[in-house]
Amino acid sequence: MRAFRLTDWGAAPSHEEVPVPEPGTGQVRVRVAGCGLCRSDLTMRQMPRPVGEKLGWHMPFTLGHEIAGWLDDGTAVALAATASCGKCWLCVRGLEGGCPHGLTGRGYGRDGGLAEYVVADQRSVLPLGGLDPRHSGPLTDAGATAYHAVRRALPRIYPGGTAVVIGAGGLGAFAVQFLRALTAAKVIAVDPSASRLAYAETVGAHEVVSGVELLPRRLGADAVLDFVGADPTIAAGIAAVRPGGAYGLIGSAGGRLERPWFGTLPRDGEVYTFQGSTIADAQEVIALAGAGLLRNQVEEFPFEKVEEAYERLAAGTLTGRAVVVL
Amino acid sequence: MRAFRLTDWGAAPSHEEVPVPEPGTGQVRVRVAGCGLCRSDLTMRQMPRPVGEKLGWHMPFTLGHEIAGWLDDGTAVALAATASCGKCWLCVRGLEGGCPHGLTGRGYGRDGGLAEYVVADQRSVLPLGGLDPRHSGPLTDAGATAYHAVRRALPRIYPGGTAVVIGAGGLGAFAVQFLRALTAAKVIAVDPSASRLAYAETVGAHEVVSGVELLPRRLGADAVLDFVGADPTIAAGIAAVRPGGAYGLIGSAGGRLERPWFGTLPRDGEVYTFQGSTIADAQEVIALAGAGLLRNQVEEFPFEKVEEAYERLAAGTLTGRAVVVL
Amino acid sequence: MRAFRLTDWGAAPSHEEVPVPEPGTGQVRVRVAGCGLCRSDLTMRQMPRPVGEKLGWHMPFTLGHEIAGWLDDGTAVALAATASCGKCWLCVRGLEGGCPHGLTGRGYGRDGGLAEYVVADQRSVLPLGGLDPRHSGPLTDAGATAYHAVRRALPRIYPGGTAVVIGAGGLGAFAVQFLRALTAAKVIAVDPSASRLAYAETVGAHEVVSGVELLPRRLGADAVLDFVGADPTIAAGIAAVRPGGAYGLIGSAGGRLERPWFGTLPRDGEVYTFQGSTIADAQEVIALAGAGLLRNQVEEFPFEKVEEAYERLAAGTLTGRAVVVL
Amino acid sequence: MRAFRLTDWGAAPSHEEVPVPEPGTGQVRVRVAGCGLCRSDLTMRQMPRPVGEKLGWHMPFTLGHEIAGWLDDGTAVALAATASCGKCWLCVRGLEGGCPHGLTGRGYGRDGGLAEYVVADQRSVLPLGGLDPRHSGPLTDAGATAYHAVRRALPRIYPGGTAVVIGAGGLGAFAVQFLRALTAAKVIAVDPSASRLAYAETVGAHEVVSGVELLPRRLGADAVLDFVGADPTIAAGIAAVRPGGAYGLIGSAGGRLERPWFGTLPRDGEVYTFQGSTIADAQEVIALAGAGLLRNQVEEFPFEKVEEAYERLAAGTLTGRAVVVL
Repeated sequence: MRAFRLTDWGAAPSHEEVPVPEPGTGQVRVRVAGCGLCRSDLTMRQMPRPVGEKLGWHMPFTLGHEIAGWLDDGTAVALAATASCGKCWLCVRGLEGGCPHGLTGRGYGRDGGLAEYVVADQRSVLPLGGLDPRHSGPLTDAGATAYHAVRRALPRIYPGGTAVVIGAGGLGAFAVQFLRALTAAKVIAVDPSASRLAYAETVGAHEVVSGVELLPRRLGADAVLDFVGADPTIAAGIAAVRPGGAYGLIGSAGGRLERPWFGTLPRDGEVYTFQGSTIADAQEVIALAGAGLLRNQVEEFPFEKVEEAYERLAAGTLTGRAVVVL
Repeated sequence: MRAFRLTDWGAAPSHEEVPVPEPGTGQVRVRVAGCGLCRSDLTMRQMPRPVGEKLGWHMPFTLGHEIAGWLDDGTAVALAATASCGKCWLCVRGLEGGCPHGLTGRGYGRDGGLAEYVVADQRSVLPLGGLDPRHSGPLTDAGATAYHAVRRALPRIYPGGTAVVIGAGGLGAFAVQFLRALTAAKVIAVDPSASRLAYAETVGAHEVVSGVELLPRRLGADAVLDFVGADPTIAAGIAAVRPGGAYGLIGSAGGRLERPWFGTLPRDGEVYTFQGSTIADAQEVIALAGAGLLRNQVEEFPFEKVEEAYERLAAGTLTGRAVVVL
Repeated sequence: MRAFRLTDWGAAPSHEEVPVPEPGTGQVRVRVAGCGLCRSDLTMRQMPRPVGEKLGWHMPFTLGHEIAGWLDDGTAVALAATASCGKCWLCVRGLEGGCPHGLTGRGYGRDGGLAEYVVADQRSVLPLGGLDPRHSGPLTDAGATAYHAVRRALPRIYPGGTAVVIGAGGLGAFAVQFLRALTAAKVIAVDPSASRLAYAETVGAHEVVSGVELLPRRLGADAVLDFVGADPTIAAGIAAVRPGGAYGLIGSAGGRLERPWFGTLPRDGEVYTFQGSTIADAQEVIALAGAGLLRNQVEEFPFEKVEEAYERLAAGTLTGRAVVVL
Repeated sequence: MRAFRLTDWGAAPSHEEVPVPEPGTGQVRVRVAGCGLCRSDLTMRQMPRPVGEKLGWHMPFTLGHEIAGWLDDGTAVALAATASCGKCWLCVRGLEGGCPHGLTGRGYGRDGGLAEYVVADQRSVLPLGGLDPRHSGPLTDAGATAYHAVRRALPRIYPGGTAVVIGAGGLGAFAVQFLRALTAAKVIAVDPSASRLAYAETVGAHEVVSGVELLPRRLGADAVLDFVGADPTIAAGIAAVRPGGAYGLIGSAGGRLERPWFGTLPRDGEVYTFQGSTIADAQEVIALAGAGLLRNQVEEFPFEKVEEAYERLAAGTLTGRAVVVL
């Protein structure tokens, strides 16, 4: 079958012909309908061998971790992007995000979804109901990660309060929608891109501002979700939280807080971060989409044009998430 | 009556003779038995007028916010150190720590407990049962603040886990005891002072280490409570937390985290800070002391020697909390 | 001023002329704009003296506990229906619902809002912003009680799940709206009245059924909120909850569960009940109404027709909540 | 190998010779050191075929679900008594107690631990550290079930409060110890048996009473854990809870509450029940035992005397939990 693979550390990925995989005990085989492309795929190309090997990655492997398709019986399913084990101390407490086995998964160290078929543990299978598997892959990663951020903040968000989403790209646009579906707070989206702000408004943002420096002083937000994570967004985001509120860091821009923590972090509030999402997150995002509460903006590419799709992703010229349809 | 007061911005406090205060509606008068001294009293002497006035402070005022004594009917009571209003959006949700009225209180901007009598709202009155009011003042502030830190972390602390207390002074020694009373975790105390570590062991620490650099690498603690808050304790404290664990910042040393937040803060964990404590905290600390589960180390000073007690506090030569007995 | 009062135990209420009340320390005077009528007002007429005196009630008193109006400066406000003290062990933890001082309040044992003026503690004052005070009284009791029920169940309600509201009268219709505003669950309303079901659909119920016996077997609901509380609704409500779900009892019909608790109550779920609401509840309901997320159906009556309004309430012929406008 | 098995519906169990089982993919083989006996084993003998088949049970099967022993490499391990799947909607949220696959497990429908060897999924394996596997089986079921009850109530138990354990047998005696290890509440044990009460005091109960009718009126307990579950214990237990407190039903005696729920269930409190426990529960109980915080009273029986041990269990003449050592 056709597959789009990383064949060596530091090398560019390429189209390869590989055998159709056979599911092992407790596994299923999925015929891929569509696979979303993620910015992290681009960084994998630069992964140094020592780091990759330490993570437990094996070359070559097929890229793509936002996967949906059909079981042998025709059931439409997506696959949870997380690779948590379900057995460790963290997993049995529902804290999959810290699972030490979660660093290697489908499309990151093992064969992923940019291929005609992929195998998966039964635990990862997410029935899609009537949702279109060609477009549902991004729900399991971009969607579920944004959902994880929102879910965590929910107990601190009250009617009459405000929630701020910094960075209104793929994840941020999902976050705006989750906040609208699950809270009665005013939702403010922040992004320098006018087109992203326009889309944020379309999917429900009550207010949009083009930069964190334009947020009202002493905003007193219940929650700030920072999908950028640079020095200025962290500083402005922390400053915008009320006592008892939450600041969630999702963006990997590598920022830090310049000011002393004591007296700057929100009093009796909560600062949190995480990577990835849980199976439960993905289930709930799919439920929201199934209920018609989620707009999932995608741009389709045929399998032959996967490299072009990655170029568009790298260049920032996509409208919505790229999905490669098979 | 006698009182020890700040009489002007920037001036040293002095013994003064003032009228016995009359309680207003909804207030009580307390004959002071003992009043604890707090490091923050020392910083109040340097408070610049503009800052003080912005906080709503009025000169002159009597120092002392760790107060216990007797009601007119002889009932032994302590007074909650917090000055929360009980009416604002935060207070009605039990989040007193962020109450905007909490910045001015007994002994910080208003007349406090270094006097023969003090008045207090009924809401602040904490019955002591059989506890000695001469020594119970520190329970309401040093005790309650340490308790607030521990209480917040409890849901993340599991049997078989580890809790780290950085800084084993007055607050830290209380924290060690709360962790022993309310969790089954291994408690590690960190302090450069051998005598403090010895005391920490006496009150229940399972292990003691003389510096954060000596904590085991990849400790994976359920919770780290940092009563210092300097750059090195923040760095080491954050690094010591497991995924899903908590880092609580109580110390006001003004530190920050040098490393990028993303990838450094504990995954799916929680970073929090606060100042002061709630009435509920103080009630529960008194309950713990009443049940014999709390050792409250104090050094007594007569009222005439209050200035000497502050000098000892400033010099760091006290054993336990200084209480001025009246 | 005019007032509608209970003048003696067991006697019918009547229109009386009484002095305009003077606010005490920490109190405000409110000119009443509108006062909602509550079914509990009807039962107060039958309150036996021993029970009333044990609750701390004093005769005579003015009826009406769903109050809104204007402060002296013209600010539109509602008054929290709860009479919690803000000082007791429960109140300082935000658990006002169990406050022992909450049994006597404005309109139940003390002078309430069926009069031109009423006094209230500052703690009870709820700014209304642009909401109409003639109609806002019911938000503080019917609204806040339904909100309390929903808020409690929220952590157990997931996207893709189901929430059932048994009894779609005044409180139930509010509950439907809170569930729609704060969850992504499917909302099913149950009521024998076709007009109530129609209204429930108007305000957002996804499905309506005319009796609990028509709920799907093994429904597996995340939450069931029972605003009736009779034997059949308890039995059907408990049976409809999934493992880990919630059953909230708000209705006072006096039912019980016939079947053995073990094996019948939802596994690892939660059964809860309460009476009344908190100040925070009322604040959040007002915020929801202010955001346009809440339809508050009322029927206006002039003060002269308060007795007619009560008759209509007793007869069940009202459309929406009766408010007496002044 | 030797095994003690149920061979047919309704038949008495018997000693049989069966092949040593082979572990499948993702499974391990455990050489059994000791297996605890549980009252539920006795009821399995009477299980009607239709009920058993509906649960998915297969005859014959080896009894025993409180299992500990050694892996092939000599590591001492216990096996989680729960048979949750780790994959379903409930399991991925850490809510294993409601897993629909949990009704058939080792020793209940499948081969259990009253044999020389047993196989188990890796997910069920609980390392014992230095604990003796001959005696550790009961930690995984009697211990973990009692722990589940306590863990659930912890957020409602405060210093200065009271927790009541009704029924001080095997599970209740564990609960007393968990409450002492994890709370600062006063612990009251209730049981008609003087020897059980004496043991409850030995393991930490502050007070003991010989019947629920002797509990103080208006006790206002933070939590009541009912390991009996008969009409009188439910009535007294519910009555003993303060507003905002918890009543947990663990005992399967089939009781119910005679009084109307509204006005009787604790205001703003919580009523919960469950069956069994989670892997996390068992891990934490083992951690508590490993830390020396848990006394696990067992009476040893050799494999030949398993039937005698069951007779003693049925007759109520055991001191502590029966474990069959192999």
